[in-house]
Amino acid sequence: MEDERNIVQFLSMNGGDGPLSYANNSCYQKAAVDCTKAMVNEAIINEFDIKQLPSATPYRIADLGCSVGPNTFIAVQNIIEAVERKYQSNGLDSSIPEFLVFFNDRVSNDFNTLFSFLPSGRRYFGVGVPGSFHARLFPKASLHFVYSSYALHWLSKLPKEILDKNSPAWNKGRIHYVGAPNNVFEAYSTQFRKDMQSFLDARAEEVAPDGLMALLFAVVPNGTLPSESFIYLLYELLGFALMDMANMGLVSEDKVHSFNLPIYFASPQELEDLVEINGCFTIKSMIPIMTNQMKNNITILDYNLCILHIRVGVEHLIVEHFGSEIIDELFNRFSEKVAAESQFVFKQDYLDNFVEQFVLLRRKVT
Amino acid sequence: MEDERNIVQFLSMNGGDGPLSYANNSCYQKAAVDCTKAMVNEAIINEFDIKQLPSATPYRIADLGCSVGPNTFIAVQNIIEAVERKYQSNGLDSSIPEFLVFFNDRVSNDFNTLFSFLPSGRRYFGVGVPGSFHARLFPKASLHFVYSSYALHWLSKLPKEILDKNSPAWNKGRIHYVGAPNNVFEAYSTQFRKDMQSFLDARAEEVAPDGLMALLFAVVPNGTLPSESFIYLLYELLGFALMDMANMGLVSEDKVHSFNLPIYFASPQELEDLVEINGCFTIKSMIPIMTNQMKNNITILDYNLCILHIRVGVEHLIVEHFGSEIIDELFNRFSEKVAAESQFVFKQDYLDNFVEQFVLLRRKVT
Repeated sequence: MEDERNIVQFLSMNGGDGPLSYANNSCYQKAAVDCTKAMVNEAIINEFDIKQLPSATPYRIADLGCSVGPNTFIAVQNIIEAVERKYQSNGLDSSIPEFLVFFNDRVSNDFNTLFSFLPSGRRYFGVGVPGSFHARLFPKASLHFVYSSYALHWLSKLPKEILDKNSPAWNKGRIHYVGAPNNVFEAYSTQFRKDMQSFLDARAEEVAPDGLMALLFAVVPNGTLPSESFIYLLYELLGFALMDMANMGLVSEDKVHSFNLPIYFASPQELEDLVEINGCFTIKSMIPIMTNQMKNNITILDYNLCILHIRVGVEHLIVEHFGSEIIDELFNRFSEKVAAESQFVFKQDYLDNFVEQFVLLRRKVT
Repeated sequence: MEDERNIVQFLSMNGGDGPLSYANNSCYQKAAVDCTKAMVNEAIINEFDIKQLPSATPYRIADLGCSVGPNTFIAVQNIIEAVERKYQSNGLDSSIPEFLVFFNDRVSNDFNTLFSFLPSGRRYFGVGVPGSFHARLFPKASLHFVYSSYALHWLSKLPKEILDKNSPAWNKGRIHYVGAPNNVFEAYSTQFRKDMQSFLDARAEEVAPDGLMALLFAVVPNGTLPSESFIYLLYELLGFALMDMANMGLVSEDKVHSFNLPIYFASPQELEDLVEINGCFTIKSMIPIMTNQMKNNITILDYNLCILHIRVGVEHLIVEHFGSEIIDELFNRFSEKVAAESQFVFKQDYLDNFVEQFVLLRRKVT
């Protein structure tokens, strides 16, 4: 059951609460949230100093890329309980602060659904923050704990070279950088670096001195080639299914050329380098999420579930580009390809080459 | 054209941006917002002391009952510009704070639409706050300016006596307290007092010392009877139209008995009394909005527009209770009744008995 931990955590998300909604298909994300609970708790035990929070100041938490719930509520609850325990263990029960929680996602996120899911009886004030976390979202030095789970591998936009027929990085007939010339990979990688730099620059302004950032990333181990990770191979098969449909005249070939997934999986080394370049944060920990923990939380792995998770994550992008008519056929064809290639795609080595990484940063005091 | 100022400012609102949406039918609300601009500016000139805002603290503004825009954005912009001018006129341009704006409305408000309307290039951080303003929504002493426009006459719930067949306040065959026994009026009035007390208690906790609240109320002059104000008479005609449909078997009579508008128009005296009972705020001004200003902003008054505004405000309540099938017929019948009774309903005295009141409160320093 070693492979269970590697399931993709997919993101930006179908709204509402129908059968294909994120809200009803985020059990893997939930498993990951549960696994990070202990790490968040430890972060607050080790790194949060009660004296840093001026009295009568609310403890302000932001979840960046929160989607529509319910996982964000679990994550936030974990953080709050850890802070409360810290006060209690110091005999300061009566000094526990109020909590203000900022739920952030893009403007296109379904905030109405998010708000309708807000737990009743919550011990915090909850607000929604629409906008890209690649730019400023909050006042200066106002946040004490920033959390972001499986959101940062979404690029803010596609690198324009990959859409340019005259560029060596034109990504003809593919939907991602797997199987593509190195120029394509470089274009993605450059965009990711720009995005992470914008992200870290904005947060450096917003996180209070000694404030914490707990970031959960989907990563590939240092030195992994796209052809060596199951997640990339799945994207490649999805691209093949689209090209098959183009060859049969079911979708326009040009449309396939201009469709690309705005997703980049960094390596731990790249993340470390980017934090270093920014210079405002100290890396307090950088640990892969434990296999055993994931095993306890994920009891069923089958390809259909895996495909469903990919679908929930990327369907809205496909629909926007191609229209909704092709979706069912595309995913049927994709499913057939996955079944046919499963021995290859789901090899242990390839499964190991896609992991979850918990990164804890602390804002330096300048 | 003296009557133009009296047009109802209706509230909680159809979402989206279709022809019957609030977003496209809030010109009267906009006129009122424009009219209050000078009052808000004066409030900040006279009552905001720059020294009260600790350096590096963002100036925090909340619009309570903001609906989906665009009026809330205009109101917020007015407040921000007034604060900026205050700094500039004191030669403190470089000390102008950051602004954090909380847009609040009920959970059922269409926040997705609100967020999609957020002005690009805005000079503030904007967040959405779902929840009833009759309870706590924000951390203690965290707000510097609270604004609320035409929201506070919505009751948090219907008083239960008016739905109770065994109560002397049972409101049989009517949809409001106009034309009803005094018990019905008393039940509404008691509920309004409870709601305003909850509102003021919550805000007393949340508004920083010396912080301001600018509240725009739809009111009836002290001593006005329901039968003497055009707005009440319109509600009565809407109720008659519903009862006609019940008598013809088009809607269930029981359903009409159990339908009531959760709206109460207080008098200025009632508002003063409630602020006094709360005890935490000083009334800095309490002025009716100027007729001339409204005249400049509202150039067309006809009954159809008036009916449309009522419809935009209460349609969702009617649909929820009766279903959407009856709406067009109901408003056609209502429209006929208004046309037939217009000489009576829109008499000058009755028009004068429904006004907009600007109330400026300042949080006492305890």
